[in-house]
Formats: sequence, C-alpha cells, structure tokens
Amino acid sequence: MEQRVSLITLGVADLGRSRTFYESLGWRGQEVEETVFIQAGGLGLVLWGREKLARDCGLDNARGTGFGGIVLAHNVRSAKDVDALLAGAREAGATLTKPAGPTSYGGYAGCFADPDGHLWEIAHNPGFPLAEDGSLTIPDFGSL
Amino acid sequence: MEQRVSLITLGVADLGRSRTFYESLGWRGQEVEETVFIQAGGLGLVLWGREKLARDCGLDNARGTGFGGIVLAHNVRSAKDVDALLAGAREAGATLTKPAGPTSYGGYAGCFADPDGHLWEIAHNPGFPLAEDGSLTIPDFGSL
Repeated sequence: MEQRVSLITLGVADLGRSRTFYESLGWRGQEVEETVFIQAGGLGLVLWGREKLARDCGLDNARGTGFGGIVLAHNVRSAKDVDALLAGAREAGATLTKPAGPTSYGGYAGCFADPDGHLWEIAHNPGFPLAEDGSLTIPDFGSL
Repeated sequence: MEQRVSLITLGVADLGRSRTFYESLGWRGQEVEETVFIQAGGLGLVLWGREKLARDCGLDNARGTGFGGIVLAHNVRSAKDVDALLAGAREAGATLTKPAGPTSYGGYAGCFADPDGHLWEIAHNPGFPLAEDGSLTIPDFGSL
C-alpha cells in the first residue's frame, strides 16, 4: 500500500452550509450530485451528506457523538498567518476550540471546529518544512 | 487559506497496536515522543494518543461514540489492487465494513475500519486520475 491519502470526505449535515463555510475560507470546489469536490494539494477534500457517507462505508447508521478522533491540520508559514486564518474561520462561523498560542514543539497554533464539528488545527511549525506548493515534509528526526 | 491539508492525525487508543497495523499495510513512519509520523504524499499521517489529541485541540474530553463523520480514501490503479489491499488490511486486523464491489461512479471499492474504527475506502475510480507519484486530480466536471 503506497503511503498516500487520495480523498478526505467530511460527512456534513447541510451541504450548502458547509460549502459556504469552506468558500468563506477561500476554498473553491465543484458541486456534483450533492457532493462538493475540492482539490487540496495532491488530494481531494470532499463534502458529502453524513448519512450517505456512513451508508457508503457499510455502516448501519450515521449517528455519532463526541470527539470523532481525527484532526486535520493546515500548516502555514508564520505565526501571523495562524492568527489571520483563525480570525477568518471565526468570521466564517467556525467555533474556536483552542485559541492560538505557543506549542510544545516551538511553533504556534490554534484550533477550530467547522459547522459539523470537524476539527482543524492551524499551525506554524518551523520544524516541518512547507514546499512552495504547500506540501509538507516530515523531517528525519534521527538526524536532528 | 490555501487549498491543502498538511497533517491528518488519527487519535488512537494503543500507539503500538496502531503502528503495527499501518506497518502491516506496508507503511513506514518515525516514532518520536509517543507519536508516529508517516509521510503520505505531500502530507503527514500522524498516530497519536486519542486523549492527547482531544486535549491538544481544546476539547474537555476525548469520549466519542458511533460514526466519527470522516472517511479517508486510498485510490489505486485497478480493481485487482482494491481486492489485494482489502485482503491485506483484513490480515492486518482491520474490520471490513463493506466488501469490495462496483460503485455508482463506475469504479470498484470496499471499506475497512482500522483498530480504532477510523474508516478507509480503498477505491479504483477511473474518473479520478492518479499521477505517477500517487497524487489525485479531481476532474473538471463541467467539461465532462
């Protein structure tokens, strides 16, 4: 199994609301058959009805409460960018779950939940280089 | 906000079990301070204790039940690859939630849950081209 992720599909309660939210962050996608497909670097971020997504994966029901157990991160190039993106997310209707602040790894980060509670961390991590195209490289910790 | 995802962090109950599971699928990562970092194309897949992940995101507790609302997909180049990967995942201890079969979009896919219930779809989707490096491009649906 090659080490890559092709799609991340977020189950949503209201497709229009979620599309508007991500568009407010500046993202652009295509809506086809009640599904929004957003190119995100080398993968696709997909917004799809929560019930359909659960059923498509073979689950009997789509109910779920509390922490879903997954956090997505969007890394940026400066602490200032973290503040700006978190402010924009709040304006777009996100719930800030953790205000921006210094991290244990010498970076700066904060977190928000999207309208369905999907969690995003916005982080500046000087130890994880970002290429010009935004792709992230995990450093060789053994050589640090 | 640039359209990209930098990290996907999976909250896990037992780091060793999860690391063994993903290594059984052929993935390789680095373990640092009770965290496993796996380069996955242009992003990092991270395995981290569920409680720590929840706390790090500002949540009061890490409890959660039922469907978490997110599904990751790993797309491959043929239906045969789907069968092979699902068989490998089952041998590694995954729970198959949907057996492989034809999809509504003319592809072939099946789903499994990892040891913590994180859901993966393994899919062959001839409409979503994969580059040589495995990156996926969402087609221009307007031109179809």
